[in-house]
Amino acid sequence: MTLKIGVIGTGAIGQDHIRRITNVLSGGEIVAVTDVNQEQAKQIVEVEKLNAKVYDDGHALIQSEDVEALIVTSWGPTHEEFVLAAIKAGKPVFCEKPLATTAEGCKKIVDAEMAYGKPLVQVGFMRRYDKGYRALKNVLDYQKIGEPLIVHCAHRNPTVPDNYIGDMAITDTLVHEIDVLRWLLNDDYASVQIVTPRTSSLAKNGLKDPIMVLLETKKGIRIDVEVFVNCQFGYDIQCQVVGETGTANLPEPSSVIMRSEAKLSTEILVDWKDRFIESYDIELQDWINSTKKGIVSGPTAWDGYVVAVVSDACVEARNSGEIVSIATGDIPEFYKGNLSIVGEA
Amino acid sequence: MTLKIGVIGTGAIGQDHIRRITNVLSGGEIVAVTDVNQEQAKQIVEVEKLNAKVYDDGHALIQSEDVEALIVTSWGPTHEEFVLAAIKAGKPVFCEKPLATTAEGCKKIVDAEMAYGKPLVQVGFMRRYDKGYRALKNVLDYQKIGEPLIVHCAHRNPTVPDNYIGDMAITDTLVHEIDVLRWLLNDDYASVQIVTPRTSSLAKNGLKDPIMVLLETKKGIRIDVEVFVNCQFGYDIQCQVVGETGTANLPEPSSVIMRSEAKLSTEILVDWKDRFIESYDIELQDWINSTKKGIVSGPTAWDGYVVAVVSDACVEARNSGEIVSIATGDIPEFYKGNLSIVGEA
Amino acid sequence: MTLKIGVIGTGAIGQDHIRRITNVLSGGEIVAVTDVNQEQAKQIVEVEKLNAKVYDDGHALIQSEDVEALIVTSWGPTHEEFVLAAIKAGKPVFCEKPLATTAEGCKKIVDAEMAYGKPLVQVGFMRRYDKGYRALKNVLDYQKIGEPLIVHCAHRNPTVPDNYIGDMAITDTLVHEIDVLRWLLNDDYASVQIVTPRTSSLAKNGLKDPIMVLLETKKGIRIDVEVFVNCQFGYDIQCQVVGETGTANLPEPSSVIMRSEAKLSTEILVDWKDRFIESYDIELQDWINSTKKGIVSGPTAWDGYVVAVVSDACVEARNSGEIVSIATGDIPEFYKGNLSIVGEA
Amino acid sequence: MTLKIGVIGTGAIGQDHIRRITNVLSGGEIVAVTDVNQEQAKQIVEVEKLNAKVYDDGHALIQSEDVEALIVTSWGPTHEEFVLAAIKAGKPVFCEKPLATTAEGCKKIVDAEMAYGKPLVQVGFMRRYDKGYRALKNVLDYQKIGEPLIVHCAHRNPTVPDNYIGDMAITDTLVHEIDVLRWLLNDDYASVQIVTPRTSSLAKNGLKDPIMVLLETKKGIRIDVEVFVNCQFGYDIQCQVVGETGTANLPEPSSVIMRSEAKLSTEILVDWKDRFIESYDIELQDWINSTKKGIVSGPTAWDGYVVAVVSDACVEARNSGEIVSIATGDIPEFYKGNLSIVGEA
Repeated sequence: MTLKIGVIGTGAIGQDHIRRITNVLSGGEIVAVTDVNQEQAKQIVEVEKLNAKVYDDGHALIQSEDVEALIVTSWGPTHEEFVLAAIKAGKPVFCEKPLATTAEGCKKIVDAEMAYGKPLVQVGFMRRYDKGYRALKNVLDYQKIGEPLIVHCAHRNPTVPDNYIGDMAITDTLVHEIDVLRWLLNDDYASVQIVTPRTSSLAKNGLKDPIMVLLETKKGIRIDVEVFVNCQFGYDIQCQVVGETGTANLPEPSSVIMRSEAKLSTEILVDWKDRFIESYDIELQDWINSTKKGIVSGPTAWDGYVVAVVSDACVEARNSGEIVSIATGDIPEFYKGNLSIVGEA
Repeated sequence: MTLKIGVIGTGAIGQDHIRRITNVLSGGEIVAVTDVNQEQAKQIVEVEKLNAKVYDDGHALIQSEDVEALIVTSWGPTHEEFVLAAIKAGKPVFCEKPLATTAEGCKKIVDAEMAYGKPLVQVGFMRRYDKGYRALKNVLDYQKIGEPLIVHCAHRNPTVPDNYIGDMAITDTLVHEIDVLRWLLNDDYASVQIVTPRTSSLAKNGLKDPIMVLLETKKGIRIDVEVFVNCQFGYDIQCQVVGETGTANLPEPSSVIMRSEAKLSTEILVDWKDRFIESYDIELQDWINSTKKGIVSGPTAWDGYVVAVVSDACVEARNSGEIVSIATGDIPEFYKGNLSIVGEA
Repeated sequence: MTLKIGVIGTGAIGQDHIRRITNVLSGGEIVAVTDVNQEQAKQIVEVEKLNAKVYDDGHALIQSEDVEALIVTSWGPTHEEFVLAAIKAGKPVFCEKPLATTAEGCKKIVDAEMAYGKPLVQVGFMRRYDKGYRALKNVLDYQKIGEPLIVHCAHRNPTVPDNYIGDMAITDTLVHEIDVLRWLLNDDYASVQIVTPRTSSLAKNGLKDPIMVLLETKKGIRIDVEVFVNCQFGYDIQCQVVGETGTANLPEPSSVIMRSEAKLSTEILVDWKDRFIESYDIELQDWINSTKKGIVSGPTAWDGYVVAVVSDACVEARNSGEIVSIATGDIPEFYKGNLSIVGEA
Repeated sequence: MTLKIGVIGTGAIGQDHIRRITNVLSGGEIVAVTDVNQEQAKQIVEVEKLNAKVYDDGHALIQSEDVEALIVTSWGPTHEEFVLAAIKAGKPVFCEKPLATTAEGCKKIVDAEMAYGKPLVQVGFMRRYDKGYRALKNVLDYQKIGEPLIVHCAHRNPTVPDNYIGDMAITDTLVHEIDVLRWLLNDDYASVQIVTPRTSSLAKNGLKDPIMVLLETKKGIRIDVEVFVNCQFGYDIQCQVVGETGTANLPEPSSVIMRSEAKLSTEILVDWKDRFIESYDIELQDWINSTKKGIVSGPTAWDGYVVAVVSDACVEARNSGEIVSIATGDIPEFYKGNLSIVGEA
């Protein structure tokens, strides 16, 4: 009854997933690994004492009869190729974001999956599995604050590494809000505008930081997201939904309440990995359970495609300063039946 | 040493000011009142047992030798006329907002005061006297969060009366943020854009409610103000300044912390009058004290003029949906020397 | 209509009261002052530009026909003498705590006042005028948490001066809780026990600090008060009432909410003077207003007497380690009719 | 490498543990079950599709060669017998509280385990695995508030079932604080006193509710625990440690922050099962992992014995109203080396 899993890409996130499936989660076993760095792949097998074969490349691993399901955690630009191969092989695949590096690539995967005729692909948007976001979604779904009208968000990192440049404020950072907010609101985006406040003197690499992203949904909900990746003080994710009769905020992470040195305080996390660490566990456990049932219950290839289209529009909006329309097209029937169990919770 | 004050307009706010000067504050005495409704003026004299003369009209009151200083709390469209008359008479005047109903009218007052050669006019923007805003300004002035980059605000009323229509979300509601934020930030506005989320089904009178006001300052600070006057749940004023190294929020009003019926809760005020009631006391006491010293320490005629110009731009922005530039001109030397004591605190 | 007030004792608290009556409050005027330090008395008249006569001693001041009401802020051991003289002269008197340094002395004042036949004495327990305690009392009076069963309190000071020794944890510190809790609960004390945790290594002068005071009321409510006067972190007053259906906490002082340096924090006051500064204003204004009406609406001589009796019991409980019964006797009819306006609010 | 586990007792908590080991946790498998209600035992095997044999009685199950480790979740009075049998069989055993229904019974287990020569027994005190308590312990261990002096606790249930009578406020409720506080403080109890406030009119079955438990530790730390099992408003666990330089509170459970109906609120849980649900997962996973390593890393038989002794003293203190000394004796060397991994974190 154990799901036999092959992992393509044994870098940091790949190793994390291997460890959680081996030591924390129930019902899955790593039976195959591969990486462009073969030594690294061998090492994780040894360190974690896996009963797993090391493959020369991802395609061999995908073809292997030992492997029932796949986790793609390789370098982003290779995702599309491996996910398409997994679909061709008819094997369920969990792919870390991005599903593909272009909207076009994502669309190819969507088309391939629909042609195959059965959902196989889940994309690694873990925020949908965060207990806080789920509690917030529960408030909305049960109409505890009426219809949502406005959403105020902030995505703040203390600092970013030197290689964080260009459009990464959108493609690496905002991308999480892009996915989780459409899930939260059961809605899709209609347009985006980005305005740029004066830049923090502590921003590095010529980065315009912070930025304010103004999204409008098809239902007319207005979303503002402050993206500020050099905020210094901590990793801070805020989301307030303003409804017709009240407001609801994403819970703050639980923390000891201190009175000390003339301050009443709680701690703010500084490492993003600590913020959603439980979500990864829940996400992967849910994927294992759903895969065994033959369904996809998490973010689909369609979700991955939509995020890619919206990201492209955001990049254009930032470059042009204009309001950019977003046209993702209607969700295909194929994906409608495939409702996320998480979403229904 | 008691300041002899004449009050023009004995409606609700006029009566409040009469009562606080008579029963709560120190150093002032109401010696003259007038109102278009003479009976109402007589009645307040009687009820509060004032040693005050009732005048036939505002101009007679202004001319009276008994009157050293004036409070104008009459109907808005009459403010300009009485303030100009007070300046002509060389008497200090506290005028409730608006200073005049048009930017042009405000400019006339500014010009008259400068021609007179000495500051006489204070405008009734009481939020600058709120302890919460002053504590927030203190945080900024002492650079506790670095330079301000973004300000997130909300101005929420539970409901509005039936006569709340048209541009009142700007001229009656947003106007408080317009004044207090430029004081808070020591900055002026450069442009405004207004976007409209879907309207609450609980909004009345065809009001587009809520709206999102996006202001940019000369220094490049970006401000977003959610104005939502049918939010149902309470009177809720939010202001978060995002600086280079941290964020600072306007304090929530102090309230008993309850655990009851499966909720940990504090109360949200529902009546706006309760929210800033102390500010009115501090404002008027400060006006009495400053007037005795022969200075104007609160919001000046120039501040009243700037708010009028910005309001006009906001109305235009709402109607057009466009980004509207704001040009208030540089502050005259005359008003620069007249620094607010409050601002220096 | 202005109340002509004489002040006996122009030390720190006397000067504060003079300043608030002169510059902040309405309806009172300082017309007479005296102090053992005549120079100090003269100086405050000069600095505050008072139209007041400096008297040689308190008794002369009390006798003066210019003086309608008295404030006694002299050295504690002299309070009894001056309050008795005021009663003899039939003049209203506001006496800072303690009413007298012994329960016996307080009883003499109670007897003298009852013999005089009309309430004249108010004792300076200002916490009853704190908006927070009044809001908490409101919660109880409106039965929002059912009948009170337990009260958890803490009275914490950052540090104490070198002359803070012996029983001062009770007579200077706990005394505020002794007064305010019986007012809050509409109840009186039946017994007290004091237990001593291990002493903080930061406590000075051989002080046993902290201590835990366990009071039982006549209705059977159990109160625990942590008194910790070297807590280092701030001046922190906590009061949680546990009722049959919920709990209610004294509000925390309002403060800017900061995110900075990996902490979400609000400020804790460090100076006790800042904590209840508004209460003093409200207390004195209320005293002026009530005195003009010929009533005593605040803490009475009886309240001062009860606090003295309870303090004595607490001191005994600390020395003996035993449970000590408290017998204050029933409140005389004379004081029953004299309900506090504050209490009714 | 999978740990083969036998479960004695398939009531509510037994079923919960079976489900978490089967569906949530990693590295364990239920291979044997038994219950006095054989049908219930068979049913859980069927429902959860376990590959497990149903045994006639606990002793047969303990003897089975298929079973490597035991979980005892049978009726409390049978714990002692099964744990002793497990020790005799040399098999690791996780026993839900109580370890035995008497201190004497616990002592027998301690003696048996020491005679066997190797730790085998873990007792189900799950609060030590709660992230909140562990964060609080971290604050203390890193001396962030100096040495602890006082601990204020509350253990509140909304209501209790009709069979909650007699000493259950101690043996069922307080018992959790008894265990977790000595772990939190690295200290043991010296004495206990219990005082009884007036009883809530909503308490049932003649229960004296609430009670206040006053504990003193060997180091002189004073602990007060309010136990209130008919508090109506929710399941509410409070723990504040007062140290020499600050205070630290157990985190409140994370919850959506709502503004609605004139209240700013977060939710309070009402079901105790939701409060520590994650702790059970962590506890059992830790037990599986440690058992595989051949160690006991959680609460030991000694801990179970100490809690029994302290509970007895609490019962005596409640009945007598006196201060009761607690003498648990020194921890044997045998248990010293067996430090809890959790405690070291």
